[in-house]
Amino acid sequence: MIDMKALVLEKVGKLSIREIPIRDEMGPADVRIAVRSVGICGSDVHYYRHGAIGPFVVREPMVLGHEASGVVLDVGSNVEGLAAGDRVCMEPGVPDLASRPSRLGMYNLDPSVRFWATPPIHGVLRPTVVHPAAFTFKLPEGVGLGEGALVEPLAIGMHAATRAALKPGDVCVVLGAGTIGMVTILSALAGGASRVVAVDLKQPKLDIAAAFGAVTPVNLEREDPLEVVREVTGGWGADCVFEASGSAGAAESLFDLVAPGGKVVYIGMPAEGTVPLDIVAAQAKEARIETIFRYANMYPRALNLLGSGKIDLKPLITDTYPFEEGIEAFEYAADPKPTSVKVQIELA
Amino acid sequence: MIDMKALVLEKVGKLSIREIPIRDEMGPADVRIAVRSVGICGSDVHYYRHGAIGPFVVREPMVLGHEASGVVLDVGSNVEGLAAGDRVCMEPGVPDLASRPSRLGMYNLDPSVRFWATPPIHGVLRPTVVHPAAFTFKLPEGVGLGEGALVEPLAIGMHAATRAALKPGDVCVVLGAGTIGMVTILSALAGGASRVVAVDLKQPKLDIAAAFGAVTPVNLEREDPLEVVREVTGGWGADCVFEASGSAGAAESLFDLVAPGGKVVYIGMPAEGTVPLDIVAAQAKEARIETIFRYANMYPRALNLLGSGKIDLKPLITDTYPFEEGIEAFEYAADPKPTSVKVQIELA
Amino acid sequence: MIDMKALVLEKVGKLSIREIPIRDEMGPADVRIAVRSVGICGSDVHYYRHGAIGPFVVREPMVLGHEASGVVLDVGSNVEGLAAGDRVCMEPGVPDLASRPSRLGMYNLDPSVRFWATPPIHGVLRPTVVHPAAFTFKLPEGVGLGEGALVEPLAIGMHAATRAALKPGDVCVVLGAGTIGMVTILSALAGGASRVVAVDLKQPKLDIAAAFGAVTPVNLEREDPLEVVREVTGGWGADCVFEASGSAGAAESLFDLVAPGGKVVYIGMPAEGTVPLDIVAAQAKEARIETIFRYANMYPRALNLLGSGKIDLKPLITDTYPFEEGIEAFEYAADPKPTSVKVQIELA
Amino acid sequence: MIDMKALVLEKVGKLSIREIPIRDEMGPADVRIAVRSVGICGSDVHYYRHGAIGPFVVREPMVLGHEASGVVLDVGSNVEGLAAGDRVCMEPGVPDLASRPSRLGMYNLDPSVRFWATPPIHGVLRPTVVHPAAFTFKLPEGVGLGEGALVEPLAIGMHAATRAALKPGDVCVVLGAGTIGMVTILSALAGGASRVVAVDLKQPKLDIAAAFGAVTPVNLEREDPLEVVREVTGGWGADCVFEASGSAGAAESLFDLVAPGGKVVYIGMPAEGTVPLDIVAAQAKEARIETIFRYANMYPRALNLLGSGKIDLKPLITDTYPFEEGIEAFEYAADPKPTSVKVQIELA
Repeated sequence: MIDMKALVLEKVGKLSIREIPIRDEMGPADVRIAVRSVGICGSDVHYYRHGAIGPFVVREPMVLGHEASGVVLDVGSNVEGLAAGDRVCMEPGVPDLASRPSRLGMYNLDPSVRFWATPPIHGVLRPTVVHPAAFTFKLPEGVGLGEGALVEPLAIGMHAATRAALKPGDVCVVLGAGTIGMVTILSALAGGASRVVAVDLKQPKLDIAAAFGAVTPVNLEREDPLEVVREVTGGWGADCVFEASGSAGAAESLFDLVAPGGKVVYIGMPAEGTVPLDIVAAQAKEARIETIFRYANMYPRALNLLGSGKIDLKPLITDTYPFEEGIEAFEYAADPKPTSVKVQIELA
Repeated sequence: MIDMKALVLEKVGKLSIREIPIRDEMGPADVRIAVRSVGICGSDVHYYRHGAIGPFVVREPMVLGHEASGVVLDVGSNVEGLAAGDRVCMEPGVPDLASRPSRLGMYNLDPSVRFWATPPIHGVLRPTVVHPAAFTFKLPEGVGLGEGALVEPLAIGMHAATRAALKPGDVCVVLGAGTIGMVTILSALAGGASRVVAVDLKQPKLDIAAAFGAVTPVNLEREDPLEVVREVTGGWGADCVFEASGSAGAAESLFDLVAPGGKVVYIGMPAEGTVPLDIVAAQAKEARIETIFRYANMYPRALNLLGSGKIDLKPLITDTYPFEEGIEAFEYAADPKPTSVKVQIELA
Repeated sequence: MIDMKALVLEKVGKLSIREIPIRDEMGPADVRIAVRSVGICGSDVHYYRHGAIGPFVVREPMVLGHEASGVVLDVGSNVEGLAAGDRVCMEPGVPDLASRPSRLGMYNLDPSVRFWATPPIHGVLRPTVVHPAAFTFKLPEGVGLGEGALVEPLAIGMHAATRAALKPGDVCVVLGAGTIGMVTILSALAGGASRVVAVDLKQPKLDIAAAFGAVTPVNLEREDPLEVVREVTGGWGADCVFEASGSAGAAESLFDLVAPGGKVVYIGMPAEGTVPLDIVAAQAKEARIETIFRYANMYPRALNLLGSGKIDLKPLITDTYPFEEGIEAFEYAADPKPTSVKVQIELA
Repeated sequence: MIDMKALVLEKVGKLSIREIPIRDEMGPADVRIAVRSVGICGSDVHYYRHGAIGPFVVREPMVLGHEASGVVLDVGSNVEGLAAGDRVCMEPGVPDLASRPSRLGMYNLDPSVRFWATPPIHGVLRPTVVHPAAFTFKLPEGVGLGEGALVEPLAIGMHAATRAALKPGDVCVVLGAGTIGMVTILSALAGGASRVVAVDLKQPKLDIAAAFGAVTPVNLEREDPLEVVREVTGGWGADCVFEASGSAGAAESLFDLVAPGGKVVYIGMPAEGTVPLDIVAAQAKEARIETIFRYANMYPRALNLLGSGKIDLKPLITDTYPFEEGIEAFEYAADPKPTSVKVQIELA
């Protein structure tokens, strides 16, 4: 344990920047990283405001932050392919690799996973972190540390697009254009979609999405997604609908949007947990519904797409704060401007 | 058009056996079949009692019956592989083969499909029928005409098991042990399941299912399926849960039964259409939900399994009536004994 | 039958432009199209020079050409969604939709398919053609008739990329940068590849491919594809290798290029038919080998991607001839410049 | 290290039973097992006779044996679900679970795997072994220790049948009816095949296979597999052909056996490594070729099927020797009777 200066959630509604003791021992398969950029996620804000998400309750002071990039300081004796000075991003969840889900390649479903800033595990709004090399990934040339910190949410969109098993030329719908909606639009476009119909209530978000390329923005305030989808697809329907709004209302006419043999991917967690699904409408299309939880094995794929320029995350980084103003960053993130997508904190 | 003696639904609640004019012209790709065995399906009974299913309303007298087998009388000039005297069963739905769903191999999703005993298309409780050879299948040696008529519901179970993409050794749950539940149990066992946990409220049905082999019957009156599934799978959960009960209640704890990465296949149509699904519980397992509508390309597979003896449908044929007593057969099917599974009508 | 002026292969090595009687009757599901642009395919040139491809032997004078676009003149009584004046492209193969492969969605595998300019079926280097509406597709706005004629080869690349089941961020290799290699590169990029390593001997082709975006050209004369793949993938290997060169030599070290769990898609037909595959090397990666034959259900997907601008075929149209100079076009296509990719013939 | 009495391959052609020092330290996630039954695999015999398999060369005395079952003696402090006295079988390969293939669920492709009786790793023809709990599996009630030792080869057949993605009612062909052919037949039947056409030259093996149920034996000496497949499938072809003979000759007409859209799974390693595959014939069917290497995640599935009685391995155990006669067992296994399938050695 060593003391380090971190952004600490002391209890509901109370943040401080202060010294806190944190494990710093390195094993032979670990790397030590100087943290450089950390995005604020909706879950960070939720812990700040409510102190808990479902069964995960903040009972002790906890360092926040799990969307992170940094620079390697030191590597363990067995580590290959990483060296001091490498610019990296990190998967925030470390599973038990011997668990049954992990052996099956679904390590994200291991219930014993230790995930940054999910109580009681400390997050990474702090100067350094020790992390397994297997979950630390070199950034390609030309990809900045801010973009590196955004690979974490991007991995969710990538996982959704991968699970959707898109075929080249598919038409997709993404419901919701928050950060997760945005990375899903980018992942669907990179993953085979010929066009994405992006649906939201907030015009500034839609304007950002529309600039991604083959995106048809639909403002729910004044347009009907069903009509747009019919027009775009000649009446056939969308091959895949990604639900990234978390809104229960979206469920009602979900299957009207879907083509015969089409899919729905549930990314957003509906606030109520349970949503009313029209199974008979789904059956008429033989629709498949996929549900996802975080991601697994997505960082290398996401970094490939960033490295080749097929995905550009820079437009999503709308607000940046220095570490010293980390508390202000959280206050802003809790009540952001409509043009805001991702708020990040930079460490020296 | 020729007149033939048929079992006719005149209007809600009113059946008669009488002469009715029916198309009898053969095209070059058609066969003419002497109908020999016809099962009574829940939909037949529903039309009899209620006169409609959803948008399909009986407005004119309609011949009932769509689960059928028979003997070929005559074949069109282009027909290969079928000849007079062949014992056959028939797919009751004839799609537009040039439609977009048909070209994609999902001809069951063609909205212009003409399906026997779905208004305004006549069913086959009548002496002969003209049908496309492409939807007429020779019965393997040793498979009787009663079993042949049961291939239609079996195809639904086969389609569900195929869509489930079972892997060898999967553990399955089938909710509901009516005819559709039964054929799903048989299909899952034939399709790779090491064990099927069969759940119903009626003990006589469970007793029939238990005799199929690796089946663990669960009587909901006195046992908890979740406990049984945990015991059978060492706590891991079922790889696939088939919902064949049509009961909305089943939806509530569906995902508790499922293993990480597992599936739910919705076969039964919930009466309300819409069911409350716990998406957050599904996401924790990354469960996939498949929905199916009838079947496509399943008859050859079903007949392979009947021919090789891996599926035996005879235990499902619990009640048989001659055509002359067809109206009594319907009255019985509308209010059967608990030991009854499938009621069939035999034509001379 | 009516007489029309067509480009006719009279016998091996002998072309003429002359009147020839051709079926012109329309059924209710057909459309009549004024042919406007026809690409010359390697198979056209092969029939011209050798009079046969495998079992298909030109025994009677045959009109050449199967890569075609045009303008609708007239539609049958049952046709929906197409009207006179529509700019369209056409699938050149018309299968028996009732055949078993067709019902399964693999209509390209129906042995009774009638394919333009495959003896004894006439091709479309002629003023008009009658074709089923189900195999006639409207061009999106902004897509020209030359590009429309290129949808046919593009469909092959799309089929290969679809069969490869690419995941977002995959790294691909395409061996061969002729027309088929080119459309495969475009399809892989549109279908999820983060990068395509394009391998050929001819620098002008590689220069065209390099302009498609995330393409790494490899000139076999002076570079080793294996080294490039290792560098691009950090030693992991390519997720998918598309063999579009038809060269038997490519087979030898194919699996060295492939990542664990990777795939090889055989598009090109090796001249010898049979190639020596190193199964033990494949097994060490558990590589999957896919083989494809033409395409099915790809036109709508290809047109989606052309319409949204994610694929641009214009750089492939390197040479255009008027119909009157059609014979010269063939002579050129039989011995083109190294900068030539696709030669097309325009009809008035 | 402790000394234990083991069956040691001293060098090519020289076996002895003697004391040898072997690691015996247990980690917190390990179990210690009393070895009870060990099958002799072709690879064991190959090391005995030739001292090497490909790059794996026996340079130091090595204990043989990797198909094993036993009884748990002791468990590490973190082990759950296993206890002293449990009857178990073990996966012989222990991968680096943090490697990239392992994280993807393909731990069998990790090049750093440590596999019993593959130089320089000792096998388990010895009284005890320390093994990770994650690769140790409890035998279901009613499954004997001899069958438990056979789970290792069964896992290969299971992996092949899983990779084949069989659908219920598929018709399969298995080329070769040695141990691997046998377990593949059993896995295919359990995994959805309606019928398996089993092909071999040795009648006694075919007689054993024929007793498994829906198996059609074909003796290559006097029958043509192609004719049998055509008859069994009405001319359509087999949905999947498993190559388990390792014979290069089998490759020549492989694709004649396959149905449109069918598959070939290469299990056997051809002696030459490379086989001539008729790609053009494969393309006409759009055949997929899968290759496999050992197995991953198959033990739980195999044990499910043994536990429910859907697979019975007892007929494969044809010869059993006590440990003291282990050298005789090897001599017999190197030159067995034609009726012999699996030779096992029992430890007290």
